[in-house]
Amino acid sequence: MLTTIKEVSGHVGKEIKLGGWLYNKRSSGKIQFLQLRDGTGFIQGILVKNQVSPEVWERANNLTQESSLYVWGVVREDSRAPSGYELDVTNLEIIQIAEEYPIAKKEHGVDFLMDHRHLWIRSPRQRAILAIRAEIIRAIQGYLDTNGFTLVDPPILTPSSCEGTTNLFHTKYFDEDAFLTQSGQLYMEAAAMALGKVYSFGPTFRAEKSKTRRHLIEFWMIEPEMAFVDHEGNLKIQEELVAHVVQQVLANCEQELKTLGRDLSALEKVKAPFPRITYDEAVELLHREGFTDFTWGDDFGAPHETKIAESFDRPVFITHYPTEVKAFYMKPDPNRPEVVLCADLIAPEGYGEIIGGSQRIDDPELLKQRYEEHHLPLEAYQWYLDLRKYGTVPHSGFGLGLERTVAWICGLDHVRETIPFPRMLNRLYP
Amino acid sequence: MLTTIKEVSGHVGKEIKLGGWLYNKRSSGKIQFLQLRDGTGFIQGILVKNQVSPEVWERANNLTQESSLYVWGVVREDSRAPSGYELDVTNLEIIQIAEEYPIAKKEHGVDFLMDHRHLWIRSPRQRAILAIRAEIIRAIQGYLDTNGFTLVDPPILTPSSCEGTTNLFHTKYFDEDAFLTQSGQLYMEAAAMALGKVYSFGPTFRAEKSKTRRHLIEFWMIEPEMAFVDHEGNLKIQEELVAHVVQQVLANCEQELKTLGRDLSALEKVKAPFPRITYDEAVELLHREGFTDFTWGDDFGAPHETKIAESFDRPVFITHYPTEVKAFYMKPDPNRPEVVLCADLIAPEGYGEIIGGSQRIDDPELLKQRYEEHHLPLEAYQWYLDLRKYGTVPHSGFGLGLERTVAWICGLDHVRETIPFPRMLNRLYP
Ligand SMILES: [Mg+2]
Ligand SMILES: [Mg+2]
Repeated sequence: MLTTIKEVSGHVGKEIKLGGWLYNKRSSGKIQFLQLRDGTGFIQGILVKNQVSPEVWERANNLTQESSLYVWGVVREDSRAPSGYELDVTNLEIIQIAEEYPIAKKEHGVDFLMDHRHLWIRSPRQRAILAIRAEIIRAIQGYLDTNGFTLVDPPILTPSSCEGTTNLFHTKYFDEDAFLTQSGQLYMEAAAMALGKVYSFGPTFRAEKSKTRRHLIEFWMIEPEMAFVDHEGNLKIQEELVAHVVQQVLANCEQELKTLGRDLSALEKVKAPFPRITYDEAVELLHREGFTDFTWGDDFGAPHETKIAESFDRPVFITHYPTEVKAFYMKPDPNRPEVVLCADLIAPEGYGEIIGGSQRIDDPELLKQRYEEHHLPLEAYQWYLDLRKYGTVPHSGFGLGLERTVAWICGLDHVRETIPFPRMLNRLYP
Repeated sequence: MLTTIKEVSGHVGKEIKLGGWLYNKRSSGKIQFLQLRDGTGFIQGILVKNQVSPEVWERANNLTQESSLYVWGVVREDSRAPSGYELDVTNLEIIQIAEEYPIAKKEHGVDFLMDHRHLWIRSPRQRAILAIRAEIIRAIQGYLDTNGFTLVDPPILTPSSCEGTTNLFHTKYFDEDAFLTQSGQLYMEAAAMALGKVYSFGPTFRAEKSKTRRHLIEFWMIEPEMAFVDHEGNLKIQEELVAHVVQQVLANCEQELKTLGRDLSALEKVKAPFPRITYDEAVELLHREGFTDFTWGDDFGAPHETKIAESFDRPVFITHYPTEVKAFYMKPDPNRPEVVLCADLIAPEGYGEIIGGSQRIDDPELLKQRYEEHHLPLEAYQWYLDLRKYGTVPHSGFGLGLERTVAWICGLDHVRETIPFPRMLNRLYP
């Protein structure tokens, strides 16, 4: 029976057996220090020459990086150890002496590391990111499940697209043409009319030839959609959700955040409510800050978002964008139809937009008008119009980009490290 | 502030406000009985003519199926009501009188219902199935999260395939060729070497021109992969997981299972451990049962699986299949290399295979030999071989098909009802 490194705190003073890999090793003649990993964490094993058999000492001597082994040892608390524990090794068995490991201690270029992504994810930093990613997903699902949402899986293969057919991956679907989804939103609206509050968690695709540090070709979105929730209610759920996620990661991933050297004080401030400014106010702010050529009606780019975020110590909502820069399904503000009841949530510290959301058009006539203005074929979108013909209700929703959220919470320069096997321009392997 | 139908038990004797839709209506002159739904459930509203204003009575008179409305009323316990509660209506406001609803009370053909899937999911039966689907996912994730697994999202777009390139959806990936994943398993093995115990939950695709009641083109899989777990440990986790899921659905979805008319006694028997028979024993059983032309080395089809399942009152593992009928990565039984350390889990009541799993090959030389036998290009699979070169360890995993599991637990004839928007041969809309 194996004990995991994550569980050692429950075995202080007892002998345990670990299964794992040698991550690193150093020696001072009569003592060998083995950095061990087993996927659940890292621990240092101490091997004292005159306390183990010559065979065991010799086996330890032969270990190369990433060699696999079983280790027996007694758990000892040690406040100097990063994890708080060490293992006094009593025995070890080699499973395999690893060939020379390609990812050595020296610096490697990103392309080299990405070519070896299947191995790179074993490193403390990459493991920490993936563990935090999983905790973020768990926190999102936990929040939504306890707040009356039902998980619904919208289709990946779709006959048409939510926001135009450019940037879509195409595939033959037997005799038809299909596209990989960019967003499950329209389907989620149908689901909200059946189940009330729903959310999706799945992959989405954009065939964009962009190479920025905020873009992936294949990325995961969480898309909640809620019947009988208006713009105001929509924002409230978003800020509660995001604050909940950040606080849960702080509570459960202390070790991983430390590994990443993340500034915790910035995260600790992330509590609801979040500040809100209108698009109009954001434009004024940009003008004051020197972006004098930014014109009302333009969409914000990364430098604009970063500048706006600098004024706040937590995520900030930008609300009421011009109707023309936003998607066809957003509900106009009844008091001012040139703007829509929408909000983007901009993360602090320059991480950009992590949520886009809005109240949806509920008036069938207005929606039909939008189809015409946006040249959307009625035949393909008839079913979406049906949602407004058979008991339309006020409803709202949003999409949270998982990878950008992970990048922000982990404090990463680039989204490519936020997902196990990133898909980017020129990157489809492994 | 709206109360949901799911919450009425906490408001007995109090007036609440619901937002929802009229599902059905009948009248006995001075009383109108409104079947209301709000996505969280169904409740009957009672409207007594001389207890409401003439305007409210008239509004109720005008309601058509799927009209949207707000309803005020006092919650009353009523043991005759399916949900145990009724609502004595005091007021109602119409949001929209729905146009004539296409899905009337009469019987419709499956194609018609599928063309209106965006509306069909509002029906009590379809809503119940989707609610149970969500509960099954929650139960799976809950079990895995509390047993030390980390959620990992493998890529959907892949440069190569796990089990051959037939039946793959192809797309251009800028200048390269990409395929939609059939299984994330190989990637999950890499993740298991980094994180110990991992699982994926995501869509997979098979471009098969089959039209059986057990096949979808796009379906969701849960794929756990575990370092330091052998064949025996693999089966133990599978039976515990499946029993946990069934018992959690029984505990949390009583109303929905009743709506479906599911035989609960069959589900109540689903407790670990599950029976196990070897492939050899299964062949003998089939011979005894009249499948005399079944030859050792054949794979089982649906009629075989159904016949085998009939002998058991809970899911049954079939273990140790012939090496030649199984995937290249399965580990041969050291005592008998013509069979592999694998198991398929066959659901009771004729629902067929819901899990396929195995211990994986950990010997790099044997894996290389398999590449040659299966004509797998070393270049594309080099990274997978790397997992055996840099600290190979015993490891195992399995894939659970979500839709078949939902079909079984819900007692459905066809998998097309197990997913919100099924993708089948000739079915890509809506
Ligand atoms: Mg934006
Ligand atoms: Mg089979």
